[in-house]
Amino acid sequence: MAEKIDSNPARGMRDVLPDEVVVRDRAMDTILRVYRRHGFVRIETPAVESLRLLLGSEGGENEKLVYKILKRGDKLEAASGSEDLADLGLRFDLTVPLARYYAQHHAKLPQPLKAIQIGPVWRAERPQRGRYRQFTQCDIDILGMSSEVAEIELILATAEALSELGLTGLTVRINDRRVLTAIAARCGFEPARFDSVFIALDKLDKIGEAGVAKELADAGHPAPAVEALRRLLAAATGDAARLDELRRELGPTLDAGVWEALSRIITAVRQDAEGRLPGFAIAFDPTLVRGMGYYTGPIFEIAQASAPWSIAGGGRYDRMIGRFLGRDVPATGFSIGFERVVGLLMERGAAEGGERRVALVFAEETADLAGVLRMARELREKGDAVTLAVRARKLGPQFQALEGQGFTRIGVVGDDGAVEWRGREARA
Amino acid sequence: MAEKIDSNPARGMRDVLPDEVVVRDRAMDTILRVYRRHGFVRIETPAVESLRLLLGSEGGENEKLVYKILKRGDKLEAASGSEDLADLGLRFDLTVPLARYYAQHHAKLPQPLKAIQIGPVWRAERPQRGRYRQFTQCDIDILGMSSEVAEIELILATAEALSELGLTGLTVRINDRRVLTAIAARCGFEPARFDSVFIALDKLDKIGEAGVAKELADAGHPAPAVEALRRLLAAATGDAARLDELRRELGPTLDAGVWEALSRIITAVRQDAEGRLPGFAIAFDPTLVRGMGYYTGPIFEIAQASAPWSIAGGGRYDRMIGRFLGRDVPATGFSIGFERVVGLLMERGAAEGGERRVALVFAEETADLAGVLRMARELREKGDAVTLAVRARKLGPQFQALEGQGFTRIGVVGDDGAVEWRGREARA
Repeated sequence: MAEKIDSNPARGMRDVLPDEVVVRDRAMDTILRVYRRHGFVRIETPAVESLRLLLGSEGGENEKLVYKILKRGDKLEAASGSEDLADLGLRFDLTVPLARYYAQHHAKLPQPLKAIQIGPVWRAERPQRGRYRQFTQCDIDILGMSSEVAEIELILATAEALSELGLTGLTVRINDRRVLTAIAARCGFEPARFDSVFIALDKLDKIGEAGVAKELADAGHPAPAVEALRRLLAAATGDAARLDELRRELGPTLDAGVWEALSRIITAVRQDAEGRLPGFAIAFDPTLVRGMGYYTGPIFEIAQASAPWSIAGGGRYDRMIGRFLGRDVPATGFSIGFERVVGLLMERGAAEGGERRVALVFAEETADLAGVLRMARELREKGDAVTLAVRARKLGPQFQALEGQGFTRIGVVGDDGAVEWRGREARA
Repeated sequence: MAEKIDSNPARGMRDVLPDEVVVRDRAMDTILRVYRRHGFVRIETPAVESLRLLLGSEGGENEKLVYKILKRGDKLEAASGSEDLADLGLRFDLTVPLARYYAQHHAKLPQPLKAIQIGPVWRAERPQRGRYRQFTQCDIDILGMSSEVAEIELILATAEALSELGLTGLTVRINDRRVLTAIAARCGFEPARFDSVFIALDKLDKIGEAGVAKELADAGHPAPAVEALRRLLAAATGDAARLDELRRELGPTLDAGVWEALSRIITAVRQDAEGRLPGFAIAFDPTLVRGMGYYTGPIFEIAQASAPWSIAGGGRYDRMIGRFLGRDVPATGFSIGFERVVGLLMERGAAEGGERRVALVFAEETADLAGVLRMARELREKGDAVTLAVRARKLGPQFQALEGQGFTRIGVVGDDGAVEWRGREARA
C-alpha cells in the first residue's frame, strides 16, 4: 500500500462528530422556527464572492483575513508573477453578501425584506483554542425599514430564539453610533481620531476605566478630553434614567430623534420581554462600540449570564446597500454567534430526546431478510429510528457498542423470525 | 457617491430567492428525517481541505476542477513565482473528505458508521444553463460493513426519501464494477484499455448501441471484441432473469459471491419497496458504469420518470479509506443530486402549506406599540408567522404587496387598538 495520506483536517479547520451535530441541528431548527414565526424568510448567497466586493466593504480587520482563490487556466498564466493572482475569495461575513444580494434582486424581494441567513464564513485568523477558520453565522436583517420597529423586531426575535434554546439570563446592551460620535465631540477629542477613541473604549470590559484612560493618554489624546470622557461615562451607564442624564449632558449636539428612538426600543423590548423571558434585561450602554466601520445608527449586543463574551451582536447600516444600488436603503441586522451558542449548549451536556433508537440484530446468512426489513419498516412508521445490524461473532460486545451509540431497544432476530428484545427499553 | 460596485454574484455562482429556499429547506428536512429514521447520523467536515488530499483521490475529472486557495503572508512570499502558490482547496465532493474523517476519528465513531452529509461542494466547470459552480450534495454512506445489507439499506432509505418528497416512478439501476470488468475480459478487450471501453459504454443512453460500437471501433478496439460486447448486452438487460443469463455467459470468470450479492440486493429491495412506493422498480443493468475510479463493487443509480438524468447515484468503494488509515475498511455510499431534485420540485410549482402568515399593519406614530407587540406574540404562540408592518401612506398598494408575499391575514390596527382584518383569511 502507498504512503498514508494525512487524515487531519487542514490547519485551523475542524471536523464535527455526530453528537455535536445533533446539538447543532437542534439549535439551528429552533432558531429558524422562531425567526420564521417572526415573519423572516431564509435566503442564500454563494460562499465565493469577487475580491473587489470583499475588499471594499468597510469590513474592518476582517478584510485582511480573506481567503483568496487562485485564478485558473489562461487567467492564471496571464497573471503569473504579478500581484494579481486571485479575483475571488471566500466570504468573511454574511452582511456584505446580503447587501449585494439585495441590490441585485430587490425588485423580486418582499419590501421590507426580513431575511434569515445561516451559513459558514471563513477567516484566516491565527488558530487558537476554540476558534476556527471556518465557522457558522446566523443572521437576521431587515432591509427597507427606517423605523426603529425594525430594531425592536430584531432584538425580540433574537432574544426569543436564544431563550427557546434554554439560555436564560440574557442581557441586551444598546447604544447608537451617533451617541458615540457626540460623546467624543463633546469631550473635545479630535474628529479625525474618533476611531482610536472608540477602539480604546471598546476595551472597557477587559481593561477597566483606568486602563481605557491610560490607553487614550498613551495614544496622545488631550488629557482634558480623557478626563471629560471619564466623568461623562461615570454618570451614565446602566438604565433608562441614565440615558436621559447623558442626553442632558450632550445637549443639542445630537438630534432628538436619536434619543427618542433609543428610548422607544428600550421601552418596547422591556415591556414585551422582561418578566416573560427568564432573567432577561435590556439597558442603554454608552460604552458599547462594536467594531464594524459600516454601522450608522443603533448598535446592540446580547450577553448571557454564564459566558464572558457576547453571543449576538448587530446594528444599523443605512449606507452599505447604496454602494451597490446607487441609492441608500435603510438596513439593520442582528447576528447570532452560532459557535458560541453551540459551545454553551454543549457545556450543558449531550442532547437528550429525539426519536427512540432501535437496532435489529440478525444473522446475515440465516435470517429471513424480507421479514427483518418489514419489521424495520413498521417500527419506522411508528416514529422510531431503526438500524439493521449484522450479528457479530460475540453478541456481548456488540450490545455494549449499540447501547453506547444510544440504541435503547435492541431486537435479536432468531432464525425462526422470533425477536428477543434487550436494552434499556426492552420492555417498551 | 462613489462608483457603484457590481451586484452580480461571481461568474458561475448563484443567489437563491426566498421562494426557492422554502422548497430547498422542506426537501432537506424531509430527506434528513427519513435518513435519521433509518439510523443514519449527520456529520460535518470543513469546506476547505488540503490540496494533497483533493488531488490524490481518484476523483476522476473532478480533480481538474478544484478551486485552489492562495497561500498567505510569508508562505506566499516564499512561493512567489513558483507553481506552488496554493496548498488548500475547496472540496469537490463529500466522499473524499468522509474517508479522511473516518480515518481520523474512527475510534470515536459508531461501528459501522452510518453517516449523513449535506453541504455545498465546488467545481470550476464551464458555466452552463442550470449548472453552477457551487452546488449542494446530500450523501449517505455506510462505513465498516462488507455485507450487502449496507447496499440494501442505502437503496431503500434513498428511494424512501425521494418518495416522501412526492417523486414517483423511481427506477433503480444496479450493476457491479467487477461484472463490467468480467464483461470486458470475456469479450477480449485489452485489460490496459478497459477504462476506455467503460467510458464508451457509459454513453449507451445518449448515443445508442450503434453509437457505442462505432466509438469503440474508432478508438481502435478489436472488431471481434466490439461484436462480442454487442451480442452479450443484447441478451442481457432489464430483469433478474437476464442477470442469470449473463452469469451463465460469463461463466466462472467471476466469483459466485458477486452474483449472489447482486441478486440478494435486487430481491430484498424489490420485496420491500415495489408496490409500496408508487411506480418504484429495481433492475440489473450491466451497462451501468458511473464515472468515479474508486468504485470496487456494486454501483447504482436512481432515475425518475419525468427527468432524463439520474437524480441519485452511488456505489461501493472498499479501498479508499485504506489510503488514509493503512488498512482497508469496507464502504459504500449513495448521493442525492440535491439541485436536480429541487429542480423537479420547483417544476411542480411553488410550495404550499406551512404556517399561516399574518401581517399587523399599524401607524407608527399613533398606535399602542406595546399592544401591537402583545397581539403579535399571542398569534405566534398559536403557531402563526407574524410580521409587523408600518402603515404606508397608501394602504391599497401595501395590501397588494403583503398579499403577494403570502400574507393571507392582514390586521390593520387602529389608533384605538381595534383591529380590522383583511386578506384571504380575514374571517379565519
